Amino acid sequence: MQRKIYLDMHSLPEAQQVFWSRFGHRHLGEETIASRIARGRVTAAPVTARFSSPSFHSAAMDGLAVRAEETFCASDDAPLTLRLDNGQAVPINTGYPLPPDKNAVIMIENVLLAEDGKEAAIRAPVYPWQHVRKVGEDIVATELLFPTGHLLRPPDIGALLTGGCATVQVRKRPKVVILPTGSELVALEDYPDAVPPGKTVESNATVLAGLAEEAGAEVAIKPIVSDDFDTIKAHLSQIAASEADLVIVNAGSSAGSADYTVRIIEELGEVLVHGITIMPGKPTILGAIGDTPVVGIPGYPVSAIIAMEQLVVPLLARMQGLHVAPPEKVQAILAKDLPSRSGIEEFRRMIVGRIDERFVAVPLKQGAGAITTLTRANGILRIGAASEGEKHGREVAIELLVPRPQVERTLLCTGSHDLCLDVLNDFLRKQDPAYPLASTHVGSLGGIMALKQGMCHLAGSHLLDPGDGSYNTSYIRKHLAGRDIRIVTLVYREQGFIVAKGNPKGIHSVHDLFGKDIRFVNRQAGSGTRVLLDYELSRHDLDPEGIDGYQEDEYTHMAVAVAVLSGKVDTGLGIKSAARALGLDFVPLVEERYDLLIPGELFDTPMIQAVLTTIATPSFKLTVEGMGGYSTRETANLVALN
Amino acid sequence: MQRKIYLDMHSLPEAQQVFWSRFGHRHLGEETIASRIARGRVTAAPVTARFSSPSFHSAAMDGLAVRAEETFCASDDAPLTLRLDNGQAVPINTGYPLPPDKNAVIMIENVLLAEDGKEAAIRAPVYPWQHVRKVGEDIVATELLFPTGHLLRPPDIGALLTGGCATVQVRKRPKVVILPTGSELVALEDYPDAVPPGKTVESNATVLAGLAEEAGAEVAIKPIVSDDFDTIKAHLSQIAASEADLVIVNAGSSAGSADYTVRIIEELGEVLVHGITIMPGKPTILGAIGDTPVVGIPGYPVSAIIAMEQLVVPLLARMQGLHVAPPEKVQAILAKDLPSRSGIEEFRRMIVGRIDERFVAVPLKQGAGAITTLTRANGILRIGAASEGEKHGREVAIELLVPRPQVERTLLCTGSHDLCLDVLNDFLRKQDPAYPLASTHVGSLGGIMALKQGMCHLAGSHLLDPGDGSYNTSYIRKHLAGRDIRIVTLVYREQGFIVAKGNPKGIHSVHDLFGKDIRFVNRQAGSGTRVLLDYELSRHDLDPEGIDGYQEDEYTHMAVAVAVLSGKVDTGLGIKSAARALGLDFVPLVEERYDLLIPGELFDTPMIQAVLTTIATPSFKLTVEGMGGYSTRETANLVALN
Repeated sequence: MQRKIYLDMHSLPEAQQVFWSRFGHRHLGEETIASRIARGRVTAAPVTARFSSPSFHSAAMDGLAVRAEETFCASDDAPLTLRLDNGQAVPINTGYPLPPDKNAVIMIENVLLAEDGKEAAIRAPVYPWQHVRKVGEDIVATELLFPTGHLLRPPDIGALLTGGCATVQVRKRPKVVILPTGSELVALEDYPDAVPPGKTVESNATVLAGLAEEAGAEVAIKPIVSDDFDTIKAHLSQIAASEADLVIVNAGSSAGSADYTVRIIEELGEVLVHGITIMPGKPTILGAIGDTPVVGIPGYPVSAIIAMEQLVVPLLARMQGLHVAPPEKVQAILAKDLPSRSGIEEFRRMIVGRIDERFVAVPLKQGAGAITTLTRANGILRIGAASEGEKHGREVAIELLVPRPQVERTLLCTGSHDLCLDVLNDFLRKQDPAYPLASTHVGSLGGIMALKQGMCHLAGSHLLDPGDGSYNTSYIRKHLAGRDIRIVTLVYREQGFIVAKGNPKGIHSVHDLFGKDIRFVNRQAGSGTRVLLDYELSRHDLDPEGIDGYQEDEYTHMAVAVAVLSGKVDTGLGIKSAARALGLDFVPLVEERYDLLIPGELFDTPMIQAVLTTIATPSFKLTVEGMGGYSTRETANLVALN
Repeated sequence: MQRKIYLDMHSLPEAQQVFWSRFGHRHLGEETIASRIARGRVTAAPVTARFSSPSFHSAAMDGLAVRAEETFCASDDAPLTLRLDNGQAVPINTGYPLPPDKNAVIMIENVLLAEDGKEAAIRAPVYPWQHVRKVGEDIVATELLFPTGHLLRPPDIGALLTGGCATVQVRKRPKVVILPTGSELVALEDYPDAVPPGKTVESNATVLAGLAEEAGAEVAIKPIVSDDFDTIKAHLSQIAASEADLVIVNAGSSAGSADYTVRIIEELGEVLVHGITIMPGKPTILGAIGDTPVVGIPGYPVSAIIAMEQLVVPLLARMQGLHVAPPEKVQAILAKDLPSRSGIEEFRRMIVGRIDERFVAVPLKQGAGAITTLTRANGILRIGAASEGEKHGREVAIELLVPRPQVERTLLCTGSHDLCLDVLNDFLRKQDPAYPLASTHVGSLGGIMALKQGMCHLAGSHLLDPGDGSYNTSYIRKHLAGRDIRIVTLVYREQGFIVAKGNPKGIHSVHDLFGKDIRFVNRQAGSGTRVLLDYELSRHDLDPEGIDGYQEDEYTHMAVAVAVLSGKVDTGLGIKSAARALGLDFVPLVEERYDLLIPGELFDTPMIQAVLTTIATPSFKLTVEGMGGYSTRETANLVALN
């Protein structure tokens, strides 16, 4: 049966409007709770003080309580002696009540106390009410402490208690129930060592629960339900009839044959929106069962989070009477072209850093399934539905996912990838201040281009010059002529053939790539590893066309290793640590130098200096050597460009 | 006994260095916990993936799984028919495993399925691996998911589960114990209706606990202990010997006779720092009992929070292996002179807003006891120890306490105060978007000066021109000549004498202020209320000098009412709602107009339009009239300037 789907797609603002206008103003109930436990809650009504503070005239300093008028004659030339034994002056501590006949406090630092404690000398007068906190100076009973809709932070709790409000009227927390559905889903706890073939670890429910909790909700996650129409319907019907203030079904929101959610919501209630012109997140369903909002959230992790952030989190805030300000934005230079389909609003996760005075935004890979783009991104670029994309070099507005000072400390590293960069990141994160190293992989030549355009703080590169056997220098002279680029060696590393355990196809040299049953996978053009392969082939006068798979390419060493591990190919060229990481065998071919290229104008910045100091430490070198296939004999050395 | 105190004050950086170098690197232990409950925890070691994701080639779309090579001949002109009944094409849902002999997926939207479901027609080819998620495309087993010291957010939990990490090694949470001390302190729960004379509600412990919890700590608050040396010592000794990772004693850190903390820490362990050149926060004590850091936090709420934020919160982060980026800063124009003692670093709480393109920072009142400055501030100005203060109009760096977009929505309101502004704030906070109204009170004329200098979005004013009985217009013409200022009436309100219940001194007119036993309190120069008094006096040919208290002034209506309530004075001029709020009596003198003055260039901004729309609503007017002493008969009307 062919089904008509998404007949009536909504734009994101339309979908928000439809959903929020239906449920956003129907506030949750209110409850009165102890102020001591009210942190993170939202006031349901204006809160006025019951007590004044101070509730009595009190000393603002440690010292002597006096009548100011009796001190007026004191001076440096004629110190005045006050009597303590008859109550003319009374020792008093900060916060203590002023005796009724006194109207000022002399700071203890300005008092010379007699040995016997019966008298005290002062050398300056005090004026009336000096160092006295007067009744109501801070809070006047009946005054407004907080308006409606105020999110209570720790200092606010102090004001509540001081103002005599032992309890406070707050909005109830919304109760959210999450129903994970999908026959392919398994709980990791049930398969701790390996996921059965064709199965996927359920992870969205916990992620969505965390986001809902951060938005102030109480969350219950139901056990995973298989893709069975009647079972899902029975569960959903029961949940909607329960105490839930909002129900999330994940996933089953798309158009596949097992995607029942939309039909079930239709049968139990009403589908308000199915299909939103956003990417990721298109198959989102917004509906109602009775009075309860129900959201069908797509199954892909990135789609799930976008749908949650754009539609559910703001609704949870509204239900609590809270109107959250939009995220902070910065203007950043886009490091890459980003074509986009018009008619759809695209959300692209980005890595943003500050280079000199400008922010630079590097797009992470696309794909609704790429959970690592969620964990690595620190910003989002929204490409409007009317746009066909954004051009590299343009200034774009980026919504920040982390505080701006953290973005400003992010080191943008690009170029060729090496596992040592992960080690470097780990070391940099342990320091104070921490500089997170965000690396994207575009190959050595791509890194040089990024340097040329000012799009990175540093780039990893291992470009061999076949003419003289040098690394990187000739490429820099060619592509970055006139630029001050510093070359710092990170490691020497072994490149070779990554092969299955036991090297079953007996691959030992480039000649063996031409064997009849050998499937090879290449690295992308512009990568140092591909340059290396081409050099080895030409050195032996071999024609690349004879290699099965020369035209297919992967973008990282690990991707090559995975291709070998999965049996898709027999071998590919890569670094030893990648083979070792996946338990594969490795046939060394050559040792090469891998350098960090750094713009001279950034060389003395604290960020770059932190990198250089770190890689020079024995503990960094020891960790790198421990991975296998690396030598740190020249690590942290500056390479002369000429 | 005269004691020498603060003999050896430390600067803040010195104190941080002393304390953090001693305790900041001594990490807490590690523990392995379920990833599902790891949100908000910090990784104790690099986390690597155990599973690849996807762990199999899977469909990235709902559709048909095929061999791409068999579709190459399909075109619009020559649709290709694929057979489903013999397995040439296999229906597949997103996320499901690709059959072993297939290498591409045709989207269901591009398929025309036959009625009997045995065949499907396509009009375009697919290329190999199209709409297929390949093994390891997102996560490769063994790859680094998170470095050490990573704060786990909800999406990170998804990556952990997907990467097969059912558990994760995290730093233990620091255990913080808070010991409130002070014979003057009582728990609000014990005195819910009124605080006994001389007693103060304990509030700091909960505030400090909230801040510590937000920094990742587990907190225990001990019962209040009286100012008794041996009792405090016994408690502290027992707590330090327990499981606590950090102990906070609040207060008893100053130099008064009951401030035992420093001596007790000396006897039980070691005092590292006593006295820091910051204000507020000077009397802070940093010490050690055995291996446990002990902090003596000052008792005043503002001092307590500064000491906590500057010294304890960063230490708690460090103990968890986290290096938190500094707060976000903006450059803002300072609205007032801020003299400061040199030799001391001053922390001033500010209200910051954006007016046109520039940020403006308005200082809140000084005073370590002013808890309301904590709840109202959205920024902090640090005035360095070397500085003697900052000048009005200068650009200064403000550390933000709330996200920047919230600062950008803050309405800066100044000038004369009226309780209706609190109502307005409450109404504005309930709207979407919410514009928090932050009002500071400098009197009507002060508001006009702030308008002149571009330091506010709007100003409240009720300046009577004795010549023609008009309000505000002549003052605007005089002080804001050439400026486009819009005048919008907020309310008419009654001004009169605030007197004790029953009006025991029988005050009925300005003549009665000259009575023998009448103590009066005035409002500050430049306030509309003082202008009004002077006008009434001159109208009756009375000499102000004959009034006892004419020279003493308060800054708000509520402060005048408090002075009457406390018996300090017999009467003062103010608004009816202030008298009513404190249960005092009120003798009406005159009805006056209270306007909002708004720069023309801001008039059409969403913020100002939100104000104007709000005050025009019946519900706003109803609430205002309900307070007594107000008429809204011209509320929201525009007043002609000429």
